[in-house]
Amino acid sequence: MRLGEGVEWSLHCLLTLGWLGSDEPVSTARLAGIFELPPAYLNKRLQTLVRAGVLSSTPGARGGFRLARSPEKITVMEVVAAIEGPEYAFRCTEIRQRGAGKDRPQDFQRQCVITTAMRKAELAWRRELASQTLADLLAAAPDAAAERTRDWFADIG
Amino acid sequence: MRLGEGVEWSLHCLLTLGWLGSDEPVSTARLAGIFELPPAYLNKRLQTLVRAGVLSSTPGARGGFRLARSPEKITVMEVVAAIEGPEYAFRCTEIRQRGAGKDRPQDFQRQCVITTAMRKAELAWRRELASQTLADLLAAAPDAAAERTRDWFADIG
Repeated sequence: MRLGEGVEWSLHCLLTLGWLGSDEPVSTARLAGIFELPPAYLNKRLQTLVRAGVLSSTPGARGGFRLARSPEKITVMEVVAAIEGPEYAFRCTEIRQRGAGKDRPQDFQRQCVITTAMRKAELAWRRELASQTLADLLAAAPDAAAERTRDWFADIG
Repeated sequence: MRLGEGVEWSLHCLLTLGWLGSDEPVSTARLAGIFELPPAYLNKRLQTLVRAGVLSSTPGARGGFRLARSPEKITVMEVVAAIEGPEYAFRCTEIRQRGAGKDRPQDFQRQCVITTAMRKAELAWRRELASQTLADLLAAAPDAAAERTRDWFADIG
């Protein structure tokens, strides 16, 4: 089981936008540049976050992205769900209804106990991610990270 | 993010072995047959569970698999870890140390706050899976499932 790199990229970009804290939109090229990420792939993720209402985008030569809401109102769960999709990691394919179960639909009214067990764990994971906001991450990060980010953006003008 | 089908297959086979509850090993062909799964692929998963100490295997024409321990001592987490591997779903590639962070190794002594947040959620997921045993799943499943399984194995002789 693996989460895509898009989650890591997105959260780092959100922290960056949080540290810059400005109303000026930041371009994909600059967000990609600070982490040496491929701009086109990163842009796809940023557009996904716009559709999820986490970022807002401004078109044009001086356009780019900014946080759509204050960091207190953006949860890690929203970012993960936007990038990875709403599906559960465990996908029940109802193998219990094949073979020996094939002719007994009456036995399968209730959710499979395996699915219930796996869902319970995924809900614990989601609950934990939903309890953490971008503001929490910004507060937990070292001051040096915020300074490095602001310095880099100031240097590139 | 997606868990492989091997988790679903493995847990259903473990429930089946729990319901049969016998000391007779059950062959891959029969375990595959009850769910109409591909025997060769299923066998790879069962061998993985043997290596993890969840199943024991008996070689030979009348050989097969049985639970290596009582259902109370097999957790869902062990099965998931055996099949999916021990890695975390979120893999930090340390993008913070690229670009603007490149020449500042002194800034990265502590774990990235994003990794910490993601780990915390994965630990909640693991904890929940570790708290559920095969015995819990057997107890939660409907009686009809146990009967259907025993009937099918009795019929194929």
